[in-house]
Amino acid sequence: MRCEVLAVGTELLLGQVVDTNSAWIGEQLAIAGIDSHYQVKVGDNQSRIVACIRQALARSDAVICCGGLGPTQDDITREAIAEVLGVALDLDDEVAARIEQLFGSRGRNMALNNLRQAEVPRGATVIPQVRGTAPGLICRLGDRSVYAVPGVPHEMREMVMRAVIPDLVAQSGEVATILSRTLRTWGLAESTLAELLGDRMASLDKLGADGRPAPTIAFLASGIEGIKVRITAKAASAAEASGLVTAEEAAIRQLLGPAVFGADDQNMEAAVGSILRDRGLTVGVAESLTGGLLGSRLTAVPGASEWFRGSLVVYASEAKRKLLGVGDGPVVSEAAAIQMATGVASTLGADIGMALTGVAGPTEQDGQPVGVVWIAISGAMGEAGAPDVMTRKLQLGGDRDQIRQISTISALDLLRRRLLDG
Amino acid sequence: MRCEVLAVGTELLLGQVVDTNSAWIGEQLAIAGIDSHYQVKVGDNQSRIVACIRQALARSDAVICCGGLGPTQDDITREAIAEVLGVALDLDDEVAARIEQLFGSRGRNMALNNLRQAEVPRGATVIPQVRGTAPGLICRLGDRSVYAVPGVPHEMREMVMRAVIPDLVAQSGEVATILSRTLRTWGLAESTLAELLGDRMASLDKLGADGRPAPTIAFLASGIEGIKVRITAKAASAAEASGLVTAEEAAIRQLLGPAVFGADDQNMEAAVGSILRDRGLTVGVAESLTGGLLGSRLTAVPGASEWFRGSLVVYASEAKRKLLGVGDGPVVSEAAAIQMATGVASTLGADIGMALTGVAGPTEQDGQPVGVVWIAISGAMGEAGAPDVMTRKLQLGGDRDQIRQISTISALDLLRRRLLDG
Repeated sequence: MRCEVLAVGTELLLGQVVDTNSAWIGEQLAIAGIDSHYQVKVGDNQSRIVACIRQALARSDAVICCGGLGPTQDDITREAIAEVLGVALDLDDEVAARIEQLFGSRGRNMALNNLRQAEVPRGATVIPQVRGTAPGLICRLGDRSVYAVPGVPHEMREMVMRAVIPDLVAQSGEVATILSRTLRTWGLAESTLAELLGDRMASLDKLGADGRPAPTIAFLASGIEGIKVRITAKAASAAEASGLVTAEEAAIRQLLGPAVFGADDQNMEAAVGSILRDRGLTVGVAESLTGGLLGSRLTAVPGASEWFRGSLVVYASEAKRKLLGVGDGPVVSEAAAIQMATGVASTLGADIGMALTGVAGPTEQDGQPVGVVWIAISGAMGEAGAPDVMTRKLQLGGDRDQIRQISTISALDLLRRRLLDG
Repeated sequence: MRCEVLAVGTELLLGQVVDTNSAWIGEQLAIAGIDSHYQVKVGDNQSRIVACIRQALARSDAVICCGGLGPTQDDITREAIAEVLGVALDLDDEVAARIEQLFGSRGRNMALNNLRQAEVPRGATVIPQVRGTAPGLICRLGDRSVYAVPGVPHEMREMVMRAVIPDLVAQSGEVATILSRTLRTWGLAESTLAELLGDRMASLDKLGADGRPAPTIAFLASGIEGIKVRITAKAASAAEASGLVTAEEAAIRQLLGPAVFGADDQNMEAAVGSILRDRGLTVGVAESLTGGLLGSRLTAVPGASEWFRGSLVVYASEAKRKLLGVGDGPVVSEAAAIQMATGVASTLGADIGMALTGVAGPTEQDGQPVGVVWIAISGAMGEAGAPDVMTRKLQLGGDRDQIRQISTISALDLLRRRLLDG
């Protein structure tokens, strides 16, 4: 089964908008075991859209057209598909009624051209919208399929997952259900992950080659957000696929231990916040080189006020001394990091104090080279834990932005592991 | 003149990497007045890369192949281009010597396959690398051109600007030089910008239509970073184009006034930092709902320690009262914002205090609905300025992240305008 993606919109060609949709669709196709050999961007020009759809159907089994379903005269994906199918566009009364109702419920008058979104190539199946106004389409041309989904990412994603991928899988003649789960890791190199999971992956490969049910494992490097380990299982039923994924997840968590900080969309700050909330602990932060990044990541978690007390961004050395009682020695040092951590916990009345001091560049500071970072964590880590302090020194490469970002996620990860140990 | 972009790499189709390169190239082509009707992603498969290049040359004058020039067996763009041209690959001694020298200077042994990067289709012109190892290529097939550039963004960008765009312009037979400058604005809706610049744009259009030298103006909405106004001029010489752009920039700055905060890559925090540095002023920040975003943006500017004293992220209400002397009333209020601003300036010993307090959601706070934000700025704004305080209330829509981001850039812009007025 092969499926291409056609992203429609002149703004994509002009670089005014980066096409992230086709990358996302490509990932979903790969998870579903569907090959995608070509992905094309084309402008709002009917004859060129038609040519692209025809070519896609000539070399693949299906094409997903993304964008160009809106209400304006520029939105001509519907017309292009009708031309490829050789059919007329009909007004779909149900879709039209829903659009009119949406406008009515928002107390707005509807411009007549919004009804263009209710036009459907004769014979096509409508994918009802649940988030916006433009419905999606499923069209057949012989044994080939043309799908149309909106270009608005959250509308597109919902529709692709609900209707397009299941239809593609059904068309492929497979009765399998495919499920996937992503474990998120921090602190291990991809080569180390491969080593730790090597035996496991080899035995899964062998099972699969023998035609036995077995999930597959893939690594996805995600830059400063760590490396993702994706488990994908294909089975005759959803229950069976889910069982395979769950069992594999348990096995991998066993092998990787605390390097796994979350699953799917759970990021590092959400993982930290969830442990703090469960333990009823609060944290206060003192930041220097990160300038507020640590606080801003923690407060991006909804409900952070339950466990986050605040962050003192003590950029100037005098501020470190005055607000946090840092002594006269160098401010990029283990001693200063400890004083910052204990100082901020006391100043903000937090159970745990966390501090970061270091040199982001472009020039050295306190005789320390660019990339040297000290992290300190102070305070009781759990009901039974006695107050204590731990520190960690990093020596990072990269530019100013990378040093700040890696310092931030490293500090979050250190706190997470400390809490798990506590 | 029409030029397509072919992004090469299986990781792009699988969605492991989002192809931002072709959007960027598309923008440069548009600025240079070159049409780009199709942009294609293809995997690391020689016959499919060959098919894509052939198709591009059949319907356009040129194609820029991006990626697949590295040292591994997967990197086969060179082989595919040689196949299209019907020529062999030869080792280029100069390129090989440079690669060997690069490895030598880094004290690393070079694996032999790195020399694959020195293979050049016979008859092709090498675009020398200045940042990495893989050189670019310029190849002719009759009156058509095939370019190859690396997929690493900063290597690609340098090479496209230095060699590819100039060659395309030369091939187009135009002797014109094209120059562009982007003015960055904040605080005006696109419709207001269009109104303010409407007469100017109409008269430029008229000049252009009469064949007289005239720049063009385009708007690019850039989300929470404001709206960009791009001036592009085409002229017989670089000096003439530069004169047109400079004159137009002055005219637009006159019409838009302080809404223009920077040009090209200068962002809002850099604009603020530059004024503070020039005036010899320092700033301290008190943040609540933004949780450190304001501090982290300001400290992203290299040299921020000259004018940034620190940020107190007072997330808990008690911290606001204890550290900043905020009174007993509601913490989302004008009075609290003023107390935070004056308090932080005094605590951190800064000339200017800036404070943000508000409700980012998901739930209301202090009886204030989600999206209410108070900004306060205190302190002397210049040598002659007396100490004073100003406030601004925002009522923002959007989700938690949007409210935090818009609050942050709004506060930076308010400080910038206040400094300019001072």
